[in-house]
Amino acid sequence: MNEPVLARLNNLMNLREEVEQLSSVFPWEPAADWFDLDTHLLLVMDVPGLDADQLELLEEEDELTVAGQRGEAQEGELISRERPGGRFSRTLNFPAPVRAGSADASLSGGVLRVRFEKQRKTWLQLGAGKE
Amino acid sequence: MNEPVLARLNNLMNLREEVEQLSSVFPWEPAADWFDLDTHLLLVMDVPGLDADQLELLEEEDELTVAGQRGEAQEGELISRERPGGRFSRTLNFPAPVRAGSADASLSGGVLRVRFEKQRKTWLQLGAGKE
Repeated sequence: MNEPVLARLNNLMNLREEVEQLSSVFPWEPAADWFDLDTHLLLVMDVPGLDADQLELLEEEDELTVAGQRGEAQEGELISRERPGGRFSRTLNFPAPVRAGSADASLSGGVLRVRFEKQRKTWLQLGAGKE
Repeated sequence: MNEPVLARLNNLMNLREEVEQLSSVFPWEPAADWFDLDTHLLLVMDVPGLDADQLELLEEEDELTVAGQRGEAQEGELISRERPGGRFSRTLNFPAPVRAGSADASLSGGVLRVRFEKQRKTWLQLGAGKE
């Protein structure tokens, strides 16, 4: 086989290994949506099985980190597992600048919702200054 | 290239297409765990954002189907989406025979738990019948 085909085959083998790793280790990366509410941004994230006191939110400049830990008591003997567990930490970029400290979070039915006030653009008045 | 290598390459190309489809369409397949509680089986499934009346459970011989629909009101304008939505339906095989109609389900924090009573094995007594 010539070099390009070998390289391609090698890439595909690597991909297969990655897929296999994903399905065996499956680190938890909770899915998140962002919405634009005109004056606010809304983050919606699936965190089933977490209580509010198991969640941490850290706002830092243009990033938001959501971390948490699902600490469910082991019930009986595990037969098969698909649900991710343990600790997760996701850092997301705000899709638009937000006002620091404006976050308003709620948790219901395993869904986290956090609203942020967007930074308002303000036109500066050109003062009639003395020359 | 010889046939086995071509066939292998073809399999890998198919895998790559499947991975690409997964990441673009992302049908909702809620993750589920099974536990053995000695006398019972326990199914634990992540269904964040669903109310009890949006879930359906159907028990049929050695299979359980869990179906549901996440009907969240669209809030504002979508900026980015990762969370799966719409309807899902998963059919799972019971990992051991269960007693029909023994299911006991609860929903809390976006996590569905269903307990099933396992079928007991019973040794039949050989009767001292007349010959």
